[in-house]
Amino acid sequence: MIQGIGAAAGVAIGKAFVLPNWEWSLPDTQVNPVDLAQEFERLYEGIRTSKDEIEFIKKEFREVVGPEESSIFDAHLAILDDPVFMSEIRGIIERQYKAAEVAVKEAIDHFVAMFDLLDDEYMKERAVDIKDVGNRLLKHLLGAPEVTLPSDTQPYILVAKELSPSQLAHLNPVYVLGIVTMMGGKTSHSSIMARALGIPLVAGLENKISNPIQTGDMLAMDGDTGIVQLHPDEATIQLYAARRDKQQRKKEQLELLATVEAVTKDGVNLHLAGNISSVKELDMALKYGAEGVGLFRTEFLYMDRHSFPTEEEQFEVYKLVAEKVGSSTVVIRTLDVGGDKHLDYFQLPEEQNPFLGYRAIRISLDRTDLFKTQLTAILRASHYGNVKIMFPMISSVEEVQAAKAVLNEVKQDLDQRGIPYNANIPVGIMIEVPAAVMIADLLAEEVDFFSIGTNDLVQYVLAVDRMNEQIAHMYHPYHPAVLRMIRMTVQAARSAGIDISVCGELAADERSLPLWLELGISNLSMSPQALLRVKHRTLNTVASEARETAKACFRFKTSLETEEVLGAFAGRGATAAEAIKEKTS
Amino acid sequence: MIQGIGAAAGVAIGKAFVLPNWEWSLPDTQVNPVDLAQEFERLYEGIRTSKDEIEFIKKEFREVVGPEESSIFDAHLAILDDPVFMSEIRGIIERQYKAAEVAVKEAIDHFVAMFDLLDDEYMKERAVDIKDVGNRLLKHLLGAPEVTLPSDTQPYILVAKELSPSQLAHLNPVYVLGIVTMMGGKTSHSSIMARALGIPLVAGLENKISNPIQTGDMLAMDGDTGIVQLHPDEATIQLYAARRDKQQRKKEQLELLATVEAVTKDGVNLHLAGNISSVKELDMALKYGAEGVGLFRTEFLYMDRHSFPTEEEQFEVYKLVAEKVGSSTVVIRTLDVGGDKHLDYFQLPEEQNPFLGYRAIRISLDRTDLFKTQLTAILRASHYGNVKIMFPMISSVEEVQAAKAVLNEVKQDLDQRGIPYNANIPVGIMIEVPAAVMIADLLAEEVDFFSIGTNDLVQYVLAVDRMNEQIAHMYHPYHPAVLRMIRMTVQAARSAGIDISVCGELAADERSLPLWLELGISNLSMSPQALLRVKHRTLNTVASEARETAKACFRFKTSLETEEVLGAFAGRGATAAEAIKEKTS
Repeated sequence: MIQGIGAAAGVAIGKAFVLPNWEWSLPDTQVNPVDLAQEFERLYEGIRTSKDEIEFIKKEFREVVGPEESSIFDAHLAILDDPVFMSEIRGIIERQYKAAEVAVKEAIDHFVAMFDLLDDEYMKERAVDIKDVGNRLLKHLLGAPEVTLPSDTQPYILVAKELSPSQLAHLNPVYVLGIVTMMGGKTSHSSIMARALGIPLVAGLENKISNPIQTGDMLAMDGDTGIVQLHPDEATIQLYAARRDKQQRKKEQLELLATVEAVTKDGVNLHLAGNISSVKELDMALKYGAEGVGLFRTEFLYMDRHSFPTEEEQFEVYKLVAEKVGSSTVVIRTLDVGGDKHLDYFQLPEEQNPFLGYRAIRISLDRTDLFKTQLTAILRASHYGNVKIMFPMISSVEEVQAAKAVLNEVKQDLDQRGIPYNANIPVGIMIEVPAAVMIADLLAEEVDFFSIGTNDLVQYVLAVDRMNEQIAHMYHPYHPAVLRMIRMTVQAARSAGIDISVCGELAADERSLPLWLELGISNLSMSPQALLRVKHRTLNTVASEARETAKACFRFKTSLETEEVLGAFAGRGATAAEAIKEKTS
Repeated sequence: MIQGIGAAAGVAIGKAFVLPNWEWSLPDTQVNPVDLAQEFERLYEGIRTSKDEIEFIKKEFREVVGPEESSIFDAHLAILDDPVFMSEIRGIIERQYKAAEVAVKEAIDHFVAMFDLLDDEYMKERAVDIKDVGNRLLKHLLGAPEVTLPSDTQPYILVAKELSPSQLAHLNPVYVLGIVTMMGGKTSHSSIMARALGIPLVAGLENKISNPIQTGDMLAMDGDTGIVQLHPDEATIQLYAARRDKQQRKKEQLELLATVEAVTKDGVNLHLAGNISSVKELDMALKYGAEGVGLFRTEFLYMDRHSFPTEEEQFEVYKLVAEKVGSSTVVIRTLDVGGDKHLDYFQLPEEQNPFLGYRAIRISLDRTDLFKTQLTAILRASHYGNVKIMFPMISSVEEVQAAKAVLNEVKQDLDQRGIPYNANIPVGIMIEVPAAVMIADLLAEEVDFFSIGTNDLVQYVLAVDRMNEQIAHMYHPYHPAVLRMIRMTVQAARSAGIDISVCGELAADERSLPLWLELGISNLSMSPQALLRVKHRTLNTVASEARETAKACFRFKTSLETEEVLGAFAGRGATAAEAIKEKTS
């Protein structure tokens, strides 16, 4: 039994396949000075091919795991554009007359050594990225083959020293029962990706085993506890198999809930909508029973491209989504780039604190050309379904007024063009900046609905960047300040008689259900994967009891008390199977 | 008449001294391979000398302009530690056998060219920094002389293509009437420094003049309007001289207010304390009539050093400050590093959004060893004066409780050591994170006082990093959300019966006075430079009128309305001379 780091949940049993450590051996080839230009051409060609390949993997991968996780590959593309890394390679060719592949290899070694020297998790992760990109580039310069994975149809547990995102992207998830790596931890890119793919992963086994695992060794692993059993006996295998099968059954039962309404035991009806980024995600949301789309993140229409999408391109997607959703509503959020989301073809300034910077509506109001194109496309789509417009990152009354003024211009323009649209299209805003909460009463006079974006709101209210490992433990969605802000927002919406919903990740945490029931929020929007889980919880909840629980939470002075009480409350109730039985009988 | 960019306020008239553009000419010296080690030794020696020199200038400079502006030199020190820049230099010596100075020159040229290519103000400013540092290093390698400035006692207006922070730091402000630069803008390092030094500066004249300005040319310039008059006629000189003299007289009159009490016309007494970072700044604050210290930023005791200051070192400073302040109070804020403040010897993690990261109390509670040393020193100093402790960046009840628990441990330790201290030392917190405002009622139960830090509060509430030029125009201290948050905080403090003060920059903006009068905040703390200005405004204000004005502001929906109304209100009233006359008669 080996104790590693549980980095992606789930149980797996199977034979190991050990990924060989591939090392490039390179002759120290010199280039004839007259052939330098040709050598540069080879380098640039290799970079182009590598970029195309990364773009392709990224796109393929995004369709499986969603846009957030696939952004890992943006880091890879950025390396190939990094002036310092590239000038190092060029310098070696130019000054030492070395072949492109030798220069690439030396530059990789140099940078990896440099980053490894810094005793910092983030930097070490950068070193893995550089190696990954560098190896890809080398492959194109040398024509070397990909590392081959077992081609037979026998599923295996993959064992590797470290696994790069590219390697993981090439795996066929059907054949990979689980992954065990010597290096890495919970926050490695490969761990993030394994979680997204639903493949169990245990990391950080280095120095924990005396004899290396061999291909063909029998393994049983648990990605929750981080335990790996080498050569497990029959009893252990039975134990792990039972747990694996139980997880599987639970998942299957949950899927039966898709067509059931989300009603508490005492008859309070909730509307669970989906957060989507693409038509593919919409399909998943609908499959899991989403009542419409509470948040369509349009920025992903702008990614993986070389220029801004045209009005027509956007219109086609918005229309398709509106039509697919049918009588339910689709809330389309206007472009929310900046912060941690970037577009290759849209140069944003270097920022010290991008989360407090030039992003979302701030860009749209600055670049009204882009804004108008998007609003035109949304308005045109409003003719084909139940579409609403939502502005992100609003922090003042002036911004809402400015955005609405642009919307009116666009409407007039469509009138002149004689194109049909819903003249009464509802307009709403995200409540995610603390200022918006504080002036929610003033903002409510300007719009038709609010949607609370808990992710950013919590970050700003607590001044905690949750991607920052050093302080991630301080990211508390159940902080009393957050609960009070949510309550303030609800009260302002209610006084003004406008709709309110929640579309942040807190909505996907089933423990939060009592809060929404107490506040009277019945519209929740969440990632498709969370829909059935939250519905299951709803079916097992007595709203009146939940409200009493929530009342107590609003009086607590600390996050911990609320988290404990809500956790305990959520722990109660029947299994999915019992809930279905009750609802369908 | 030439229209440039007014980058530092003030009027100047005088003869031009044109700074020559210094270009290093270097023979392309080759090094004998056996002498490589010696060449590296020369390089490292040059780096060491350069670092010492920068440290010295920084320290000298800080005493003139304060710690914020002098942090420019930290960027310079960072370049000499930058692994990429240094590896480039080493690479050229090692692979091409070039002399250290040639390698430095080539590396500078390479990086400057690279940064200049990027069409980005921030990057261009980085290029200036690299040139500045590189030239310093070259100077030490070559033994070349400093650029000489006029040594006679005739004051001059300095004219330069661009001015590096080092060059500016070497100027004797007494002889520099004003500065005119061809490049740069309001946010150049040299402009920031000129403002701190009180030297008028007009930047960005390139392409605005046909014939270059010559040494000896007569100039009249206005750093407010950005206008430079080349060869002005007698009438123009008279005009500029009159304006310059008026500014001078106003300044002298203001200084007479130092010993006058800050009382409104209708008898409301305010207490204006100083924000300080050093004993030198305390002296300035006391000279300008500060009633004690409302904010002692202790992080500057930790800077410009090679290790953490000892208990004894800190104690000596805290004690000296407490004694100097006498019967008034000194609020000592515990270490507030992280964000944009770093210590050379304390490696903080690389952060994507440092303002939302590992900083201030978060570090102190993590590194209780450092925290205890500081608290011990503060407690010991409390025996010698009226000392209060303040914790920065508080966002939860748990943090306050944890900090107080550490304080109690330290008290017990002092008891055992038999060292005297004020057992009832008041403990307060900064209110600067939105969460703290939202739970101000809960926090008020835990502490003796609040101090509102408007700078960070505004940044977090509006999600606007004010150092980010792209969105700096969105940084609105008079935003209705901010005013409401301040009011919420005051109400919580009042209900709990604890003290409240304001120590952010908003307190130094005399337009804000009506807000404090309306809210009943009588303790304001600000930079020493602002004390007389705010006192002058107080003397000219009728509190009852101010309160009516403020009441209107709390009803406005936009920052602009408040700013206009407060601005108009502040525009009224008598001159400083009249105010003194009235108060002393």
